[in-house]
Amino acid sequence: MEIKDTLKSFPLLSKINDNELEALIKLLKNEDFSIGDNIITEGDTGNVMYILVSGTVDIIKTTIFNDEYICATLNSNMHCMFGEMALLDNDKRSATVKAKTDCKTLSIDGDSFNKYIDEYPKAGVELLKFMNLNLIRNLRAENDNLKLVYQALIEEIESN
Amino acid sequence: MEIKDTLKSFPLLSKINDNELEALIKLLKNEDFSIGDNIITEGDTGNVMYILVSGTVDIIKTTIFNDEYICATLNSNMHCMFGEMALLDNDKRSATVKAKTDCKTLSIDGDSFNKYIDEYPKAGVELLKFMNLNLIRNLRAENDNLKLVYQALIEEIESN
Repeated sequence: MEIKDTLKSFPLLSKINDNELEALIKLLKNEDFSIGDNIITEGDTGNVMYILVSGTVDIIKTTIFNDEYICATLNSNMHCMFGEMALLDNDKRSATVKAKTDCKTLSIDGDSFNKYIDEYPKAGVELLKFMNLNLIRNLRAENDNLKLVYQALIEEIESN
Repeated sequence: MEIKDTLKSFPLLSKINDNELEALIKLLKNEDFSIGDNIITEGDTGNVMYILVSGTVDIIKTTIFNDEYICATLNSNMHCMFGEMALLDNDKRSATVKAKTDCKTLSIDGDSFNKYIDEYPKAGVELLKFMNLNLIRNLRAENDNLKLVYQALIEEIESN
């Protein structure tokens, strides 16, 4: 399947017209990873965002005690991206993304992304809206997690 | 001070040109609140976003035990907005926003916002980028909070 057809199946890109999509494709870089590779490492700097074209990845965070835990597993059928936070704010990576199988990705760096959305603002609005919704979903999930851990803490304190 | 001058001091709007700003102003609604009013109530539906023009608000969440806690206090010197999550995803309000003093706000609903960014995509890119960065800052803070509460939980378990 051609890259353009692959990308058209991504909800992230579904409202982007052919002309805008072709301009975007020129900026995307093919990056392949082998099982076990860290595509992104928590705490690193780096402003590259990845679209997962094939394979499965684990999103891994470390606790304050340096224990690792898997907080999500993503596969290419989910038509997802990762790495969008540091792409936008240039801050440290908030999680590790490890290839659970061999993976094919398309990547874009922050500079290319910003130039693209300046030149193609209609496509930019669609991309940013999608990224916004992703972030909101993650933030709502994190709120729920915080409530659960807080509840466990209170129950633990009260049981003693 | 005219509304246009007030808005020009907002980083959120600093890259929006006069023509785009005037079109936005036509969609904004003046909404004033008295001290103690809930501008937004956690759990409610509602897709209105607010720009805080004068006054101070508390962002309040409830724990699973129905205890309220203030997770942030915002004032108009911070040139901030609130309510952007439900504006974008139409889901329930994730926190209560209570007027700590009398407040003046400018509000916009989701439909008006979406029409505006369709018609003025260059301004849309700027607004969405700013909202994205706000969400990322909140998500990074929530990650840190989760780590702290988790640490307290483990320490509590280990002390028994």
